[in-house]
Amino acid sequence: VKRKHSGKDLTIFSEMTALAQQNNAVNLSQGFPDYEIDERLKKLLAEGTEKNFNQYAPMSGLPALVDNLITFNQTRKIPISVSKENITISPGATYGIYTAIAAIVNFGDEVIVLEPSYDSYVPAIEMNGGLPVFVSLKNNFEVDFDALKNAISEKTKAIIVNSPHNPSGKVWKKSDWDQLASIIDSTEIIIISDEVYDILIYDDIEFHSAFHHPKLRERCFCIFSFGKMFHITGWKVGYILASEELSLAYRRVHQYLSFSVNAPSQYALAKYLEIFDANENRKNMQQKRDFFLNEFKDLPFSLKEKAEAGYFQVLGYENISKVSDKEFAIWLTENAKVATIPLSAFYHEETNTGMIRFCFAKKEETMLRAATNLRYL
Amino acid sequence: VKRKHSGKDLTIFSEMTALAQQNNAVNLSQGFPDYEIDERLKKLLAEGTEKNFNQYAPMSGLPALVDNLITFNQTRKIPISVSKENITISPGATYGIYTAIAAIVNFGDEVIVLEPSYDSYVPAIEMNGGLPVFVSLKNNFEVDFDALKNAISEKTKAIIVNSPHNPSGKVWKKSDWDQLASIIDSTEIIIISDEVYDILIYDDIEFHSAFHHPKLRERCFCIFSFGKMFHITGWKVGYILASEELSLAYRRVHQYLSFSVNAPSQYALAKYLEIFDANENRKNMQQKRDFFLNEFKDLPFSLKEKAEAGYFQVLGYENISKVSDKEFAIWLTENAKVATIPLSAFYHEETNTGMIRFCFAKKEETMLRAATNLRYL
Ligand SMILES: CSCCC(=O)C(=O)O
Ligand SMILES: CSCCC(=O)C(=O)O
Repeated sequence: VKRKHSGKDLTIFSEMTALAQQNNAVNLSQGFPDYEIDERLKKLLAEGTEKNFNQYAPMSGLPALVDNLITFNQTRKIPISVSKENITISPGATYGIYTAIAAIVNFGDEVIVLEPSYDSYVPAIEMNGGLPVFVSLKNNFEVDFDALKNAISEKTKAIIVNSPHNPSGKVWKKSDWDQLASIIDSTEIIIISDEVYDILIYDDIEFHSAFHHPKLRERCFCIFSFGKMFHITGWKVGYILASEELSLAYRRVHQYLSFSVNAPSQYALAKYLEIFDANENRKNMQQKRDFFLNEFKDLPFSLKEKAEAGYFQVLGYENISKVSDKEFAIWLTENAKVATIPLSAFYHEETNTGMIRFCFAKKEETMLRAATNLRYL
Repeated sequence: VKRKHSGKDLTIFSEMTALAQQNNAVNLSQGFPDYEIDERLKKLLAEGTEKNFNQYAPMSGLPALVDNLITFNQTRKIPISVSKENITISPGATYGIYTAIAAIVNFGDEVIVLEPSYDSYVPAIEMNGGLPVFVSLKNNFEVDFDALKNAISEKTKAIIVNSPHNPSGKVWKKSDWDQLASIIDSTEIIIISDEVYDILIYDDIEFHSAFHHPKLRERCFCIFSFGKMFHITGWKVGYILASEELSLAYRRVHQYLSFSVNAPSQYALAKYLEIFDANENRKNMQQKRDFFLNEFKDLPFSLKEKAEAGYFQVLGYENISKVSDKEFAIWLTENAKVATIPLSAFYHEETNTGMIRFCFAKKEETMLRAATNLRYL
């Protein structure tokens, strides 16, 4: 069978999690929590099925969930005003990204990807007949807007952006969005904005969505993840904000791709939005990041950029080894019994960076075990 | 935004369900049950989240679910021997069909569709750069294998088949599969086989899967639906059987499209496979079909083919009206307060057939209400 994209047979996340299991290593690779989830989420999921939310939810989402997302976005520190025409529930954020791309990319269209970036973007572009065009982030993971501007051509259909950024945890400032808006002002380029770590931002840094920007909100898809927001990556529910026109285009694809999303989960998420405490959630995660940094500070890794958000901390290993990122990550799993993600996995040419990514969405004891293992390096 | 397929802005199922709600009509249109689901499924879903199946399941499926599907398929009346390399869990059968198509169809490939057929096939083909080629079923909804043979060209990549058939409930006999196998024997055509009503077959008719056939199992995707099997259409979980090579191709797409499937639901389905009673399930549904036929037999609709399987009964309305299928279905919803699906919705050219589809996956009282409403026609 002819390959449909230049991606892998097995994603780096599946690969490293499997390798961690084989080696009985502490798994700081794939981004998922190992701590208990909020008990109330469990109760609410049980309640959802109990109350007979077991048949097809409406194609664009359960009304209660959509309504509560309107409120939730209205009550952000910097509010986002949306109506139900702007919101579509998706079976996960990866699906949201794919479907946004499928909704707008036609054969031969170019889509700009900033590297390093999440591994599903390029296969999703290619599967829809698009051509990825790569622009490197600066060394500090900020956007090189001159390079971005130079990459735009007549054929550019979309730019995929990602803030908070995976793997680096870098958060776009308002001025970044302004620059992006000004670059595409005279074009019809659409922004696909992966914002799955939107509510996990630390040190009082502010979150700005593409949807906040008056010039961008009419031409963007913003993709969010309840899995990341509420630490339930296995539920596979996310949501998409888009203009009315783009929502229509999205739904035109979605309704023939999967039609609707797990109904009992949608019920639980709707109710949970009414009670969850975003501040506490953020504080807990910031504490985890700080715990991680503190435990790792005496280890021979180098810290270039402290994660501003999300689940991950990137560290350099140049003081330990000169082998490739992938070789180092495998070696570390097999020998130090700590699994990570090599940064090269976020580049289409597997560019070696001398860096690996650690997931700190873990119990303190897990991070402690990892640090202990690494002390014997 | 340029349209990516020739499908609708809103599927006929969303449209008729919404119209039913607006008109306070009995909804026999979209295929979902209105009766209570098995209480044990609710308990098991609560148990799944309670036992912390809340993080990413493996990309191809929760091992316990995959293992139990191996057993389940082995213990069918006509066993299907599969191993875990043949099974992938999907977020619903519609997704499974899309992803199978995405895995193999390249720009310019032809894919044969038998009409009438489910409305997602054609958009899924077109979105992946393929060209649908249409072959009409015979009046009794059996396959015209001569016409099918004639539709095959050098460019034919796949044929989508569907047994038990939606909308008609027709079940393929072993000889049908033999004929299909012989037609494609000298080609490399792949079969995409929608078998979502596999365990809901009545009157002791036997189920034959494409996967049963020694010449087809190496070149087919068979798509199944827990939603339909267990009457939980809102859970949105299905599974795909395919050869090892085709499973690999499927997973190569799936892992970048949605990556994995709702984990608490997968846990519940795994456990439920150990206890559910397929015979009782089938008997209950057959009773519903018979109840429906009995209540409707004195109404002015004509019965051409009794449903052999599934959730639906097609009836003719030529004794009542000569308007188009769609007009009749809308009229019936608004005036008799009974919502159905016009058969024209299953044809790319909206061919009028003088028939509509009724869903009998409903409580007896619901069907009774529908029949009562229709008596005043
Ligand atoms: C879908 S597996 C990848 C999870 C994730 O977001 C990450 O580890 O980056
Ligand atoms: C996904 S909505 C359609 C449900 C169904 O299978 C049908 O009504 O035919």
